[in-house]
Amino acid sequence: MKTLILTRRDVEGILTPAVTNDTVEKAFHAYGLGQTDMPPKSYLYFPKGDLRSMPAYVHGGGFDIAGIKCVTVHPQNAAGSLPTVMAVIILNDPRTGFPLAILDGTYLTCVRTGAAGAIAAKYLSREDAEVAGFVGCGAQARSQLSCLQNVRKIRKIKIWQFEGDKVCAQTFRRWAKAACHVEAVVSSRIDDVTLNADVVVTSTPSRLPLVNRVSAGTHINAIGADAQGKQEINPEILKQAKVVIDDWAQASHSGEINVPLSRKLIGKRDVHAQLGDIVAGKKKGRTSAEEITLFDSTGLAIQDISCAYVVYQALKNKRGIQTVKLF
Amino acid sequence: MKTLILTRRDVEGILTPAVTNDTVEKAFHAYGLGQTDMPPKSYLYFPKGDLRSMPAYVHGGGFDIAGIKCVTVHPQNAAGSLPTVMAVIILNDPRTGFPLAILDGTYLTCVRTGAAGAIAAKYLSREDAEVAGFVGCGAQARSQLSCLQNVRKIRKIKIWQFEGDKVCAQTFRRWAKAACHVEAVVSSRIDDVTLNADVVVTSTPSRLPLVNRVSAGTHINAIGADAQGKQEINPEILKQAKVVIDDWAQASHSGEINVPLSRKLIGKRDVHAQLGDIVAGKKKGRTSAEEITLFDSTGLAIQDISCAYVVYQALKNKRGIQTVKLF
Repeated sequence: MKTLILTRRDVEGILTPAVTNDTVEKAFHAYGLGQTDMPPKSYLYFPKGDLRSMPAYVHGGGFDIAGIKCVTVHPQNAAGSLPTVMAVIILNDPRTGFPLAILDGTYLTCVRTGAAGAIAAKYLSREDAEVAGFVGCGAQARSQLSCLQNVRKIRKIKIWQFEGDKVCAQTFRRWAKAACHVEAVVSSRIDDVTLNADVVVTSTPSRLPLVNRVSAGTHINAIGADAQGKQEINPEILKQAKVVIDDWAQASHSGEINVPLSRKLIGKRDVHAQLGDIVAGKKKGRTSAEEITLFDSTGLAIQDISCAYVVYQALKNKRGIQTVKLF
Repeated sequence: MKTLILTRRDVEGILTPAVTNDTVEKAFHAYGLGQTDMPPKSYLYFPKGDLRSMPAYVHGGGFDIAGIKCVTVHPQNAAGSLPTVMAVIILNDPRTGFPLAILDGTYLTCVRTGAAGAIAAKYLSREDAEVAGFVGCGAQARSQLSCLQNVRKIRKIKIWQFEGDKVCAQTFRRWAKAACHVEAVVSSRIDDVTLNADVVVTSTPSRLPLVNRVSAGTHINAIGADAQGKQEINPEILKQAKVVIDDWAQASHSGEINVPLSRKLIGKRDVHAQLGDIVAGKKKGRTSAEEITLFDSTGLAIQDISCAYVVYQALKNKRGIQTVKLF
């Protein structure tokens, strides 16, 4: 038997924002129903980065698939030719253990994170949301916008320009106009971007709160915090908002809530639900036009494995795909 | 940059018993000096098998390499065409995170386990050992013998024939004579095999003790127990013997000592050392010709990653090796 070797290009061809949103929603649905197994991430620490092992088994929502994502994070790569984040996924058949496919997980990680934001917005943002504020303007901001557009009719985006980096915001503005056909403006005053926005998306590596004010009715996708000590949102907003996380173990350890939790500014009782509980109908999402909602995304292995399976299914019989007979 | 895709055939060509013994000894040496990181294995459980994630980082003994082995165990595969145990290894450069290679880990797992037994025998068996008794006669028995021959001049082996399975022992006997040039006899009485043997090697899936008697001066390589509830050796022998394990966390959870520990027949004080401590010179191995020694092998990710690195180094510039540009 042969194992598929799937490159970034192969994965990009299948995981459109619409397909990824649909897949990630099913994975969260299965998670909400207890049809997934996901041991905690484990970490190896290097002098200049780390490696995270993320195994998962999804046995619901139309899936019966397992595997592991191996993802490395090396911030200093940004100065060279390699990406900061690189990932490889091994996909296994739970019935026999056979390694069905080995996939590039670099693009997949980016788009499945955008899809988690979109699914959170589907259940938590106002249905008439049309203005989005972006704090952070890198690859993840693009993915968030692309996926968000599939669930809400975004007409205008506002982009925060970090002092001293004029290139990133302007590049994102031009891309958004051309690729997503939205009105796009850049501002160096963060309140201009986060106030009067229906959806606020944060995707920075910040360790200090950046977002201090949002309007009533706003939904926040807090994406950037994915390690201990990282945060982007003023804890006062967390205390006011209906806070939804992806997974308690991961979010309390390394998500947006990790710093305010460790400082006892908020407690577990301030967390309304895990997203899977809402997608599965076990808890309510938004219940009024005025409430502030916040989704704390850390990224789950079930998102990776379900998306990898969709790619595998689409390409397993396609001609021209690289394969290997491993043993 | 391209990632190497290395098949079983590629791996077999490099990992001879001599090369594997040398590599595994260096890995245990680094482990003994605290130059390795190895988070606990994590498990996914399926209806008919499991998947184990085994990450490791080796930064000593000439290594600076990290990665993860993803290994599945499906006992019912034995009835079909797929192996019971299949493994894939991803090898990462700790400096950048780049995935240097993806390797078949199926053969590698077998030979690195043989090498651990050989290194244990190098430090724990009598130097004049020449007779080995085998309890278990599958692929792992072959690997144990091949690697053992590189550290001790084995002249004769005795093979236990499990009632009702005459094929396995006879096949192993013929293979040993032809491939390893040793005298080989088969017996259905286990005491005949385990008494008057300088080295006893057990590699069965047993859940009840099989080995009840060994002679003074014997070294035992207890290889088979690798999950909760498995054991091959009478606990009375464990109480008499100098017991050496590969790793406390793994051995106490799933090695030969797990059952007698859980029943309080032995305690942590009955464990003399981890093999790495002996290889690194921090603890003594055999100190008399009469003592009984026992090595409890569960299999460490540092063995996998160090062996995978040796294969990668040997083949990274070789023509004809399959590669992929993942992203």
